Amino acid sequence: MPYFGTGVEYALHCLLWLAGPLERPPSSRDLADMQGISPAFLKKIFPKLEKAGIVEASGGIRGGYRLARPAETITVLDVVDAVEGPKSLFDCQEIRGRCALFEGKPPKWSTQGVCGIHAVMLRAENILREELARTSLASLAAGVLGKNGLPARFPDQVRSWFADRQTAREEARVTGMRSR
Amino acid sequence: MPYFGTGVEYALHCLLWLAGPLERPPSSRDLADMQGISPAFLKKIFPKLEKAGIVEASGGIRGGYRLARPAETITVLDVVDAVEGPKSLFDCQEIRGRCALFEGKPPKWSTQGVCGIHAVMLRAENILREELARTSLASLAAGVLGKNGLPARFPDQVRSWFADRQTAREEARVTGMRSR
Repeated sequence: MPYFGTGVEYALHCLLWLAGPLERPPSSRDLADMQGISPAFLKKIFPKLEKAGIVEASGGIRGGYRLARPAETITVLDVVDAVEGPKSLFDCQEIRGRCALFEGKPPKWSTQGVCGIHAVMLRAENILREELARTSLASLAAGVLGKNGLPARFPDQVRSWFADRQTAREEARVTGMRSR
Repeated sequence: MPYFGTGVEYALHCLLWLAGPLERPPSSRDLADMQGISPAFLKKIFPKLEKAGIVEASGGIRGGYRLARPAETITVLDVVDAVEGPKSLFDCQEIRGRCALFEGKPPKWSTQGVCGIHAVMLRAENILREELARTSLASLAAGVLGKNGLPARFPDQVRSWFADRQTAREEARVTGMRSR
């Protein structure tokens, strides 16, 4: 099992689109359909991003999600933490204190301070987190959408797809209301 | 779930003892009992360490495990890789190619090169691995056994525990053979 699950991947891919200019905030359904990913799964991820202050929902017919703060201030680590919640590389079980010599009564010195093995893992985890905090959503989006070989018109085509989708949905609702 | 499982923790704690001077190579059962950890689980871990060239088994009545190479040349990363096998922080599902605009036929440019999101994760994974490769078993053992507050006689007491255990086992076998 990878450490960061599919939820992190889906969230980052969606946020890349929210980081760019969009006519109206897309719904999580729009984002799922545009990217060929599970709408039901994505629907569970957006409340986590909202709770973490990464996106905000705007209700109503034109309802959808937009970034809650500038893409420059949202890091990959923020997204990972929002989606995955608290988790750690290593779960220290304090084996130090279980030594047979202690006969079930570990002396204080045996478990004082952080275990040397745990300390190595904590250091590695901090370095991992620092690295993920180094990349913002803005720079990630610039890299992905400015990639060599990507047609210049592609981002606009995606934006049009979202706009068409939203217009169609709105028209369907208005027609539905009229026919009642 | 932590990324590195209990197997890594058990393996590192055992290897710390194998890194020091021991009269004879302890069995995985000796190591489990001395540390109050599951002998059945530990028994499954040692063949992995052996396969990775970290420990070697010596058979016979006095059979047990010893390091296969100097503790200075074994890193925490070596142990993690031996116990966990190939695993990765992030599993890229190439969502780029699923865009609705492509209608099931992603153009070559859409999945060319590494996805920007995957690239961030690969960079983080490399940095994590580099950090784990920085600590050798020798320096880990020196840190753990040289810890402030740890009684100077403690490592020797543990070594005596192993020696007594092995002597008792050997005597029991010899007695068993004589009584046949």
